[in-house]
Amino acid sequence: MKVPRKLLSFLRKKDKFFIATHINPEADAIGSALALSMALETLGKEIALFDKDTIPEFYSFLPGQERFINSIPPLITLHSPLILLDCNSLKRAGIEGLSFRHSAVIDHHEPAPLCGARPGTEEDFGDIRWIEPKAAATGLMVFYLIKELGLNITSEIAINLYSAIAVDTGTFRYNNTTPEVLRVGAELIEAGASPACISNNLYETWSEGRFALLIMALNTLEIRDNIAITVVTKGMYKKTGAGPEDTDNFSSFPRMMKDIKMSAFFREIVSNCWKVSLRSRGDINVARIAALFKGGGHKNASGYEIKASLESAKKSLIKAVSTI
Amino acid sequence: MKVPRKLLSFLRKKDKFFIATHINPEADAIGSALALSMALETLGKEIALFDKDTIPEFYSFLPGQERFINSIPPLITLHSPLILLDCNSLKRAGIEGLSFRHSAVIDHHEPAPLCGARPGTEEDFGDIRWIEPKAAATGLMVFYLIKELGLNITSEIAINLYSAIAVDTGTFRYNNTTPEVLRVGAELIEAGASPACISNNLYETWSEGRFALLIMALNTLEIRDNIAITVVTKGMYKKTGAGPEDTDNFSSFPRMMKDIKMSAFFREIVSNCWKVSLRSRGDINVARIAALFKGGGHKNASGYEIKASLESAKKSLIKAVSTI
Repeated sequence: MKVPRKLLSFLRKKDKFFIATHINPEADAIGSALALSMALETLGKEIALFDKDTIPEFYSFLPGQERFINSIPPLITLHSPLILLDCNSLKRAGIEGLSFRHSAVIDHHEPAPLCGARPGTEEDFGDIRWIEPKAAATGLMVFYLIKELGLNITSEIAINLYSAIAVDTGTFRYNNTTPEVLRVGAELIEAGASPACISNNLYETWSEGRFALLIMALNTLEIRDNIAITVVTKGMYKKTGAGPEDTDNFSSFPRMMKDIKMSAFFREIVSNCWKVSLRSRGDINVARIAALFKGGGHKNASGYEIKASLESAKKSLIKAVSTI
Repeated sequence: MKVPRKLLSFLRKKDKFFIATHINPEADAIGSALALSMALETLGKEIALFDKDTIPEFYSFLPGQERFINSIPPLITLHSPLILLDCNSLKRAGIEGLSFRHSAVIDHHEPAPLCGARPGTEEDFGDIRWIEPKAAATGLMVFYLIKELGLNITSEIAINLYSAIAVDTGTFRYNNTTPEVLRVGAELIEAGASPACISNNLYETWSEGRFALLIMALNTLEIRDNIAITVVTKGMYKKTGAGPEDTDNFSSFPRMMKDIKMSAFFREIVSNCWKVSLRSRGDINVARIAALFKGGGHKNASGYEIKASLESAKKSLIKAVSTI
């Protein structure tokens, strides 16, 4: 993977950076941003780390995660150079409408389509755009970036990058698990990341409420046309004491069944408004299905929002699947 | 990892081998044995592959698994040199009492204690004993052995060895996941193993009935003294069409909760008779608890059988936990 020279020179020249990542952040967003911040600080740079949303409680093991701010910082203003991480549009970071004098984008997601433009036209925010859709994780890109800058991978950086890569590859289970990914993982262990400790933090730190919510969701399971559908309603949060952030990864469970081609998880936002998470395996491209509802994502993991009754929302999805 | 010269010369000299692995085989046993057989066959050796038990259905994706025989072979007799894989005693392979003129052991398990002997005395079956308790998997040892023999890692060998290592490291989640393990994984991908395909086969081939049974089991969840208890009754098999073999790994799910010190899964064998599987993490030694009920296992995974009503069985377990 080749780090653009322009990006390296941008990072070396500027003194202050405003680093922002996407809303609803997960380990790749958080870990990549933290690792890059820590590395740039060793060069004497001043960093403000922004995410519009709060960092979920179960990521509290990521070193430095308490540094994230959820509002625009007073000291480092919007005139500071922006680095957009793990997303490639201001909208995805929840800061659309703001303007930045200098900006760089570091991301492994396909560029977002430009709203209202002709099909195929992409948003092209950022003076410097380093986008590698083939990279398994933004964390992998940040790993090469830090090495290219000649900086040390400290144990704190290693833990953040390993967690970033672990989450985006399903701890080395998805088809983006390349030999390169495993070799970078090996280097990060040598630099201080503990696979067992990270996996334990990622997968075995559920609250009892969250586990109770999962059981409730699984009890709603229905299978239509080899699509597994599960649901979480607002009422279930009340009963379990869990919240929307606890539903992360719920959509993956029904995929354990061999005859399921897709898992669709419906989470109630407000009455008659649903966030739908889709997970597939193999050739079923759920990014295309989500796009039909103005959502987005990857081939095997995508999502969208829909205003409808639950039953209508389910039906519209099943119809959409049959058309692609 | 250093392959003993004696072992290499043994494998080069002899023409026929009887390869046996342990009862209740999993991917490390099956995959290592298949990989070694395939490699030796390229040297013109004749191989008989033995496991006393049938290879579980969900391992049918392992190339060559149909070659396992469950009875002593007619052509290659017991006088053929024996290779014992992923275990280090004849008893563990279910062939105690038989004698072999020449034998080699390749294993990563701690040597089994000698039955009836003074504590600390180990069984020392095998003319050549290559035992590496620090190796994450026997598959890792076989990888180095094949390389040392100067043989090619074919894609079929790679799939078997990758699966072996994947299962014994929890696909790179346990604390035996070293940089070396990931680098060998990388080489095996380059040789033809597909991480996504293997993970899919290992974790995403449940029947709908098995998934329904899991949901039923989770619905029985109760938490007492930070012990998560779940139950499967014979009635649940009838309702779901699943069977006892489908409950494999059910005990792991409640361990996702951070405040759980132990997960206990009760599976009804006959009325008022239960198979209890215990899973813990960290320092809680469930082998000791199982030993109180004449069961056995490892520090974090053990089991025993008990004749009692469900409620009495639960109570006796909770009492036992409080005494250790």
